[in-house]
Amino acid sequence: MPRYERHLFICTNRREPGDPKGCCAAKGGEEVAEAFKAALHARGLKGRMRANKAGCLDQCSHGVAVVVYPEAVWYGGVTAADVEEVIEEHLVHGRPVERLRLPHMRD
Amino acid sequence: MPRYERHLFICTNRREPGDPKGCCAAKGGEEVAEAFKAALHARGLKGRMRANKAGCLDQCSHGVAVVVYPEAVWYGGVTAADVEEVIEEHLVHGRPVERLRLPHMRD
Repeated sequence: MPRYERHLFICTNRREPGDPKGCCAAKGGEEVAEAFKAALHARGLKGRMRANKAGCLDQCSHGVAVVVYPEAVWYGGVTAADVEEVIEEHLVHGRPVERLRLPHMRD
Repeated sequence: MPRYERHLFICTNRREPGDPKGCCAAKGGEEVAEAFKAALHARGLKGRMRANKAGCLDQCSHGVAVVVYPEAVWYGGVTAADVEEVIEEHLVHGRPVERLRLPHMRD
C-alpha cells in the first residue's frame, strides 16, 4: 500500500485582488484545508490519511479545488461544510461525493 | 486515465528559523518546485503532467520532499540538479530514481 491511504491536496493559491480568474484563497481554500486537517485528526485518521495545502491546481473558476490521490478524484467548489461528507463517504468508505466532482477531470 | 499522467507535489513548507526539524523551504524547496515547473514546460509536458508546491509533507529531516502521484513514489533530499533526471527517468519513462527514494515511504 502507498504510505497514505488517501492524500488530499487543497488549493490555497492566492492571486491579486481583481484577477479575473479569481483564486481559491479568496473562496475559502485555507478554511477548507484547516477543516480537513482538523477533521482527520479528530477522527484518528492522522497517519493513515493526510491533507495538504497546495499551489494552484488550475481549476480557479470552479471554486475551491481538492484532489484526492492515489485515485485522482477531483472536486470543485468545496466548502468547509462539505468536509465531513467527503471524509465519511469518500475517504472512509471509498464512495466519492458525486455532486462535488469536476466532470471534466473524471477518468 | 487520470487528468494528469503524473502529478508532483514539492514541499515548500517554511518553519521558524532555528526549528530543530528544519524545513523544506530552507533546503531549497521553492527552487526545486520552480525547476520542475520550468522543465515540464520546456519539454512540452504541461497539461499532461503538473508540479505543485505543497505544505508540509512530514519528511522535514530528509531534505526537500517530493511525492509523485498517482503512483505514490516519495523522494527526499531533492535538489534542482536532480530535476532533469527525475523527469527523464521517472515521469517520461516510468523508472523511479532509486537513489532519491525515501525507503520508509515505499509500498
